[in-house]
Amino acid sequence: MIRIGICGYGNLGKGVEKAIELNEDMNLVAIFSRRDIKHRLPVIKIEEIEKFKEKIDVVIMCGGSKNDLQNQVPLFAKIYNTVDSFDNHNEIYEYYKKIDKINRENKTVSLISAGWDPGLFSMARLYSKCILPKGKTYTFWGKGVSQGHSNALKEIDGIKDAIEYTIPKEESIKEIEKGETIDLTDSEKHLRECYIVLEDGADKKRIENQIINMKNYFEGYGVIFKYITEEELNEKHNKMPHGGKVISLGETSDENTQRIEYSLKLDSNPEFTASVLVSYARAVYKLSVLGDYGTKTVFDIPLNLMSIENNEKIIKEYL
Amino acid sequence: MIRIGICGYGNLGKGVEKAIELNEDMNLVAIFSRRDIKHRLPVIKIEEIEKFKEKIDVVIMCGGSKNDLQNQVPLFAKIYNTVDSFDNHNEIYEYYKKIDKINRENKTVSLISAGWDPGLFSMARLYSKCILPKGKTYTFWGKGVSQGHSNALKEIDGIKDAIEYTIPKEESIKEIEKGETIDLTDSEKHLRECYIVLEDGADKKRIENQIINMKNYFEGYGVIFKYITEEELNEKHNKMPHGGKVISLGETSDENTQRIEYSLKLDSNPEFTASVLVSYARAVYKLSVLGDYGTKTVFDIPLNLMSIENNEKIIKEYL
Repeated sequence: MIRIGICGYGNLGKGVEKAIELNEDMNLVAIFSRRDIKHRLPVIKIEEIEKFKEKIDVVIMCGGSKNDLQNQVPLFAKIYNTVDSFDNHNEIYEYYKKIDKINRENKTVSLISAGWDPGLFSMARLYSKCILPKGKTYTFWGKGVSQGHSNALKEIDGIKDAIEYTIPKEESIKEIEKGETIDLTDSEKHLRECYIVLEDGADKKRIENQIINMKNYFEGYGVIFKYITEEELNEKHNKMPHGGKVISLGETSDENTQRIEYSLKLDSNPEFTASVLVSYARAVYKLSVLGDYGTKTVFDIPLNLMSIENNEKIIKEYL
Repeated sequence: MIRIGICGYGNLGKGVEKAIELNEDMNLVAIFSRRDIKHRLPVIKIEEIEKFKEKIDVVIMCGGSKNDLQNQVPLFAKIYNTVDSFDNHNEIYEYYKKIDKINRENKTVSLISAGWDPGLFSMARLYSKCILPKGKTYTFWGKGVSQGHSNALKEIDGIKDAIEYTIPKEESIKEIEKGETIDLTDSEKHLRECYIVLEDGADKKRIENQIINMKNYFEGYGVIFKYITEEELNEKHNKMPHGGKVISLGETSDENTQRIEYSLKLDSNPEFTASVLVSYARAVYKLSVLGDYGTKTVFDIPLNLMSIENNEKIIKEYL
């Protein structure tokens, strides 16, 4: 049995707990949290992270990218193998180099930036480019709740609670589906709709300014602000659907265009992301047993490492 | 530069030649063929395969599964690293074991059963299962020309030329898209439409019997026979479109169902398959340099091995 720890017990952490139950080669052993949560399993304060050194094979890091993962993963990677869903695209390479140094010094394995984007969508983008070098790939997100962007909003002073929906611009998808090769930035393809619960006396103008200038998250996008009550947020925005598609078009000769499309339709983004993290935790465990230490991304992991089955069975049943 | 050889110069081999031109780290060095073909490059008879031992890094095997690959890959794998698209699903594991023994004895690498199915579709099936263990996956092919099935027809005595179209049954796709979890065999999901040019005096009845009883290819399927002239075949059936989709539905909790869909729409099946083989030839070359000998499938290959780019660039641009 692979012994798993969870760090962070929000939506993603709870999703990981559910996903572990569906994987019969894994056991959840403990939860690391800053908060006083009630749970049948040991809940460990982050200051005592060494406590389960000999009892956990992989810790799945379930905090937000912006503050939690940047601070926590460097601490955990000294002691444990980790998996995370660090999703701040522009900072991934620096983060990768930082964690890799820690992994190599401490003989641990960390898989970073797994999930569906970065993660499965990244894989679709890369192999489409490998197969169709003379081609172009478009990524669309939504409509759906972005946990990373929602967390970024919640960290702003004066915001009590918030949720962000990423909305693809339909007219752009249609142009591409017609086969037109167009250049579009992410901000030209999507809108960002923010439902915000303010704290009493919060300075709305300062908050909006802070949001539209938040680099890598909101800067450059069309942002829609909607202010609602806490009750309304809890009632009408308690589901976290998401989805999106990666469309690649490439020519293999003058006459022939090939199209690869990868799409997701998710009832629950955190539960799906959690399921991806859990299957990569298996890969991380196998790599650590092999002594293949260091930081990995989804591009480094052959699919057989993610599977509970042996080689004979996956060849016979899935190839 | 990676030095490539092609074995077999039909539609697939010609597609490989075109794909190599789009990959700037590769050179086509020679073509192995039983036939007397004209080409600017050396054309080597299969009896003289040793001739390019020091001059080729990977041979891309472009014959049909049924007779060519079963016989040729064991010979080539003694001398060269190889990539093939062996697509007889039920025989892959035996084939894998046979080639693996040869690879290990001769310190070569062979990637078998690459292409889009087996290949990219297999990857979609396996990772969907890893991520959504409580789920079900459906594969649909077509409408399109199956090279494997067309080749199988052409090898029958009395058939001068032939082409097979695989046709998905629309009613099955609709049921699944409605979210119904149903059990369907491949033969219940598809029809096989055969356009056949007979040789003079051929025994139609014996041929049809032979086709509908051909194990792993036609047995159990609804088969439609259409007899046409050679001219009609060349005029109306000279394109090889194909495509299909892998649809996976899985529950991550009682409330939430997640859907992964991977689809291809191909103007030219052989050119697309060729493009997949060429990107895996790069992976095979890298593995051989690392001394990681043996037989591999797409499940063993991390995507970074398929890419022409370095780690920093793929993290920054594709993750």
